[in-house]
Amino acid sequence: MPKRIVILTGGGDVPGLNAVIKQVTYRGVGMDYEVVGVRRGWEGLTHLNLDDADSKSRYILPLTPLNTRTIDRTGGTFLHSSRTNPAKMKSLPEHLKGLTFPTKDIEKGGKVSTVFDVTTQVLKNLEALGADTVIAIGGDDTLSYARRLHDEGVKVIAIPKTMDNDVQHTEYCIGFSTAITRAESAIQRQRTTVGSHERIGIFRIFGRDAGYTALYTAYVTNIRCVIPEFKVDLDNLINLLVQDKKSNPSNYSLVLLSEGAEWEGYQVKHFGEADAYGHQKKANVGDDLAVEIKAKTKEETIVSDLTYDLRSGDPDFTDKLVACTYGNMAMDALAEGNSGLMTGIVNGCFDMVEIPDPKLGPRKVELGSMYNTERYRPNYSNKRGLPIFLCRA
Amino acid sequence: MPKRIVILTGGGDVPGLNAVIKQVTYRGVGMDYEVVGVRRGWEGLTHLNLDDADSKSRYILPLTPLNTRTIDRTGGTFLHSSRTNPAKMKSLPEHLKGLTFPTKDIEKGGKVSTVFDVTTQVLKNLEALGADTVIAIGGDDTLSYARRLHDEGVKVIAIPKTMDNDVQHTEYCIGFSTAITRAESAIQRQRTTVGSHERIGIFRIFGRDAGYTALYTAYVTNIRCVIPEFKVDLDNLINLLVQDKKSNPSNYSLVLLSEGAEWEGYQVKHFGEADAYGHQKKANVGDDLAVEIKAKTKEETIVSDLTYDLRSGDPDFTDKLVACTYGNMAMDALAEGNSGLMTGIVNGCFDMVEIPDPKLGPRKVELGSMYNTERYRPNYSNKRGLPIFLCRA
Amino acid sequence: MPKRIVILTGGGDVPGLNAVIKQVTYRGVGMDYEVVGVRRGWEGLTHLNLDDADSKSRYILPLTPLNTRTIDRTGGTFLHSSRTNPAKMKSLPEHLKGLTFPTKDIEKGGKVSTVFDVTTQVLKNLEALGADTVIAIGGDDTLSYARRLHDEGVKVIAIPKTMDNDVQHTEYCIGFSTAITRAESAIQRQRTTVGSHERIGIFRIFGRDAGYTALYTAYVTNIRCVIPEFKVDLDNLINLLVQDKKSNPSNYSLVLLSEGAEWEGYQVKHFGEADAYGHQKKANVGDDLAVEIKAKTKEETIVSDLTYDLRSGDPDFTDKLVACTYGNMAMDALAEGNSGLMTGIVNGCFDMVEIPDPKLGPRKVELGSMYNTERYRPNYSNKRGLPIFLCRA
Amino acid sequence: MPKRIVILTGGGDVPGLNAVIKQVTYRGVGMDYEVVGVRRGWEGLTHLNLDDADSKSRYILPLTPLNTRTIDRTGGTFLHSSRTNPAKMKSLPEHLKGLTFPTKDIEKGGKVSTVFDVTTQVLKNLEALGADTVIAIGGDDTLSYARRLHDEGVKVIAIPKTMDNDVQHTEYCIGFSTAITRAESAIQRQRTTVGSHERIGIFRIFGRDAGYTALYTAYVTNIRCVIPEFKVDLDNLINLLVQDKKSNPSNYSLVLLSEGAEWEGYQVKHFGEADAYGHQKKANVGDDLAVEIKAKTKEETIVSDLTYDLRSGDPDFTDKLVACTYGNMAMDALAEGNSGLMTGIVNGCFDMVEIPDPKLGPRKVELGSMYNTERYRPNYSNKRGLPIFLCRA
Repeated sequence: MPKRIVILTGGGDVPGLNAVIKQVTYRGVGMDYEVVGVRRGWEGLTHLNLDDADSKSRYILPLTPLNTRTIDRTGGTFLHSSRTNPAKMKSLPEHLKGLTFPTKDIEKGGKVSTVFDVTTQVLKNLEALGADTVIAIGGDDTLSYARRLHDEGVKVIAIPKTMDNDVQHTEYCIGFSTAITRAESAIQRQRTTVGSHERIGIFRIFGRDAGYTALYTAYVTNIRCVIPEFKVDLDNLINLLVQDKKSNPSNYSLVLLSEGAEWEGYQVKHFGEADAYGHQKKANVGDDLAVEIKAKTKEETIVSDLTYDLRSGDPDFTDKLVACTYGNMAMDALAEGNSGLMTGIVNGCFDMVEIPDPKLGPRKVELGSMYNTERYRPNYSNKRGLPIFLCRA
Repeated sequence: MPKRIVILTGGGDVPGLNAVIKQVTYRGVGMDYEVVGVRRGWEGLTHLNLDDADSKSRYILPLTPLNTRTIDRTGGTFLHSSRTNPAKMKSLPEHLKGLTFPTKDIEKGGKVSTVFDVTTQVLKNLEALGADTVIAIGGDDTLSYARRLHDEGVKVIAIPKTMDNDVQHTEYCIGFSTAITRAESAIQRQRTTVGSHERIGIFRIFGRDAGYTALYTAYVTNIRCVIPEFKVDLDNLINLLVQDKKSNPSNYSLVLLSEGAEWEGYQVKHFGEADAYGHQKKANVGDDLAVEIKAKTKEETIVSDLTYDLRSGDPDFTDKLVACTYGNMAMDALAEGNSGLMTGIVNGCFDMVEIPDPKLGPRKVELGSMYNTERYRPNYSNKRGLPIFLCRA
Repeated sequence: MPKRIVILTGGGDVPGLNAVIKQVTYRGVGMDYEVVGVRRGWEGLTHLNLDDADSKSRYILPLTPLNTRTIDRTGGTFLHSSRTNPAKMKSLPEHLKGLTFPTKDIEKGGKVSTVFDVTTQVLKNLEALGADTVIAIGGDDTLSYARRLHDEGVKVIAIPKTMDNDVQHTEYCIGFSTAITRAESAIQRQRTTVGSHERIGIFRIFGRDAGYTALYTAYVTNIRCVIPEFKVDLDNLINLLVQDKKSNPSNYSLVLLSEGAEWEGYQVKHFGEADAYGHQKKANVGDDLAVEIKAKTKEETIVSDLTYDLRSGDPDFTDKLVACTYGNMAMDALAEGNSGLMTGIVNGCFDMVEIPDPKLGPRKVELGSMYNTERYRPNYSNKRGLPIFLCRA
Repeated sequence: MPKRIVILTGGGDVPGLNAVIKQVTYRGVGMDYEVVGVRRGWEGLTHLNLDDADSKSRYILPLTPLNTRTIDRTGGTFLHSSRTNPAKMKSLPEHLKGLTFPTKDIEKGGKVSTVFDVTTQVLKNLEALGADTVIAIGGDDTLSYARRLHDEGVKVIAIPKTMDNDVQHTEYCIGFSTAITRAESAIQRQRTTVGSHERIGIFRIFGRDAGYTALYTAYVTNIRCVIPEFKVDLDNLINLLVQDKKSNPSNYSLVLLSEGAEWEGYQVKHFGEADAYGHQKKANVGDDLAVEIKAKTKEETIVSDLTYDLRSGDPDFTDKLVACTYGNMAMDALAEGNSGLMTGIVNGCFDMVEIPDPKLGPRKVELGSMYNTERYRPNYSNKRGLPIFLCRA
């Protein structure tokens, strides 16, 4: 019987995932492996009930050159995705209810909840699937469970993807370049609108913990940015934007905020009474900045959110190049009998690295080399010696 | 002395405005006119102080083939824009303070305010500029004042633009086709994200009074839509979306809502106490639908706003074609001594029509021919005999 | 047994074909028809051997909502295409060899060849397939055979497609708008290259008999053009280009030539001895103009061919709108019991028209209204009253 | 008096050049330099006649933040370009005729011609311009003269650009990533045409000496390629393409050829008698392969040239990132008193390197690691340890 590779994608989708899946399938088949796609990330291994044909067809998808031939031409993930972490499940899948699993209490946003760790079930399913090696593609959360499986003795190879580019031990995660390409193009296009109306344009971009998306988009569009790694002074920021506007012959200025951007004294607000369903509206830092600018200067603003478009569509060249290479590096590692490693870029070169310990948290922008904490813009000087993506793993 | 054409653009920018400006300039110069660009729409004629060099350089821009040669390659408006309506000014420009103008009380959103009508000043400025004819490019609001000027005896030719396509007397306004092209492409791209996560995707699109943008985008992407012209039944809508999702092998479904979309019993909410600056947050119908879907079905959603990107960037072929043609038709009308007219498309053909009376309000989608009020989707049958954009002026 | 619709696409592919196929399938199924896709245009009906399983699977593809659900998101034709004309076949398909069919001699490019008319076989296959109605999508050549089938008593509905927009009886063929959108964007992008090198840029575009693609691209990019409908004077053309270049502050100029463009005294050359396989190289009018410009003025040129890219990728809004509408109009006609008609746009409105008689030849640009025969550029004035695409069927 | 930087761009334009020019200008002004743009590459320094106002305005353009503010949003070069090499001029500029310059005979394509070395004039002009440092942006040929100037004692900093990516001493030249992004997207789009017609698609791409553009495009589109570094066996190549086609359910296959691609026994042909102006047509390797395929297999092909579009339009993220960084590294080098260096990427990291000696010729693809000489496709395995662009300087 041929050996089996199990492959899955977890977390948010990014362009390039399908290129990885295709490369792994083609290389795998060429190396006499069977390649088994598990659908919906780790959920596929927690919810899979091999005694139930519906569950099997929902969660298991054998991969072949034929059914992966054209998938790399579209974004998203052919295997679909979820945010399930088998070590932290809020509720058990139907067919596991009544069974006993370890629990623990975790705290998020001030709320404590009890979660189940269904790793024994995951291991059982992997064994039943005859999995020789698991290839897990994902961001922080998905990869943390890949590390857990490795600790449990499963042969795992991890591939980092996230447009936030904030996975530890690598300078690059699949999806980052396309996100910046999309963000840059949206901002450059929308200059016409902001300029025609002579406003201050406020763009907000994904990035709760790390400012890579905001910073690198600002780097290539030459605009100001605020990133989670540095709390700016509000008056200084507004002054800079008003001055930028005045000195611009088209009488407008632009700033790009990470979702997690803050200024001194600012805290993301929740406002209003809870509605019928108990939801309070979260404030958007872009809207809040617009209110502040209006109040302090009477300047009108346009607030524009850069959201799902950043992860949609086809990968750009860099993401396609890295996705193809990561997929093949995973297969090379497997051929060499390595496991417990993650593909990555270190010091500008492709490498296999340790799967990051979740305790490290997300990787952050190094302020000293990359951010001008007075001018609230990227730092352009002294890049000699830095790897191509200007940051270190 | 050569005769002078005054040209201005008001309201939101759309791709194609610069093509109009360029065509008018080239044709005008070829016909021995001087072409004077007035900046920032009608504000240029209310705020212009011809005794003040700064004001003149801010509001007056003589147009030539040289300075308009390349403008048609970018979106926005070279002349900039504003939403000023000289007949309804909330406050007077600095240099007019102390002068007497007619006032009236107007009501908007339950609030009454007193506004000034500074038409006498506009007429004075037009005379001082030596304006033979005014070419005004804009949507409802801008055009309503063009009609007013015509009533005052000024020679005016109007050109309709708005991505909402809701100006009366014409089947087409500049910006509509590009907006749909952008919206279609954003929705098709984001299918990968909605599908990868197996969600119900809710898109929201500009269109407060009329549903053209939502309806025509839905027509070409084959998804459901809710438009301001018809209040849907919430349960029916949610049922359709859940069924769509189930019957889709990729397990997702999509709906597109106009900003002004509503369901029976729904009213756009303002919620929360006013913040320090007296602002209450307006609810977004997309977010509200997401809450309802979650509450009634436990289905997860992705809400995606289609906003400024729709009006940014280059015009598509149809907008460029119409923009060039409208610009030249305005000049033909002028050459023939016509005025008080608007360029338009009527019954599929280019025509000159009456500038719409603001009392008519925005043009609306004709439900009978275009919207399926049970399936909440465009109606595809019986189009024979309809003009190319499937609606009548 | 449900009635059957046979649908096929012939000739060159254009974006929008898949939208037609999808609409016909969905509407057809909703109207209780079976929809049978015939692959590779008319070849599917000449080469289909219903006794041969391979031939059946090669040429027959039953269409369902499931297998056409996503096809409208890509260009090309899901049913594939060919240029086969069953009335003019140079050789018989293998399984028909030895059978007797009418023949005739036709002349093309001075060469006479004998062709077979296998219409009896086509009729036999249609009967065997149980075809109630044939929906044929194509350009001149494909449609001429649709008319032939109608004359033979088959119920046929035709849908015109060709980026050349030169089918008689309609102002619009699917693919035209996208082709212009692509051509415009390629030309605007390449201005940077032509300008940076201070050259005369010569673009060549598909269009052997009719100049619509060249003319309308020139209309929206404001450059000179030469179309097959008018032989220009070479010296005058070169003078205009040299003057354009001099008066352009960036010191370049552009001209767009139809494939079939000519000047007085010019004839497309074939040059060189035939190679080993009997092929002579055909000259490209763009290259020939470059040689003439260099010889007469020493000016350097850049010659750029606009070719397959014009028909590749997704349809733009107009093509998607028209494709969806044409597909549904065909089904409306069928429901009303009409046949022998073609969907079209006449005087700016959707209509059903006669399938054109091939004797009419391709539709041509009306020089008087659309082309300036002295300045070699589109004519921009006096468009009032013309349908939106500025030409009449 | 402030020190002066002279900056120029030579050779073919690529997206990203304007970002370099803008960064150098902004940084330069911030460092109290005057930045003087020399137009049309080295021609600006050979043809500049400082006694002639027309010549000065043609060749000298003082750069400021104001006039470079928006240039990075478009491709091409704001300073224009030429292929002039002052050490190898075929004829002298008008105002230098009669003066004596060193000459030598050079041979190109079997033809010997005498060229002038006008370096003394270049040095004179640089001195007259008060140039402290020259920043030269270009490919092989432009940079070879930068090195010459350095040898003459001029302070020179070089920046490599070429979509061919074949400059020695660096792994990356500006323009490469965008070229691949464009090529990939063109090929993926044209799959619909090649597939719809069931052909063998032959793409030809710029790259006379080095195969980087073909190879990397093939890497990310997963198609076969032929590069100048390896002569393939024609029968083997055709067999592979025919097999690819057969095993593809859509019945088509694709191959990408560098301009300089060859097979054993093939030599680029010139054919036909010279025309009136002494030009013979050069054969295109894509057309020649099409002829061979037709002759040997009867298969139909589609030949598509990827040409100027690859260098047109906006830079992608990687090119913008590298262009901004190279521009600033040049200014850092200048601030540190370094010269005679070129910005580059070495082993995945930004570095300053020696300006390449022209004797080294163009950089070539390393076949061993990157090309499968039996399957005529990129080699995907064993990339661990390689820099991100998978090649070494």
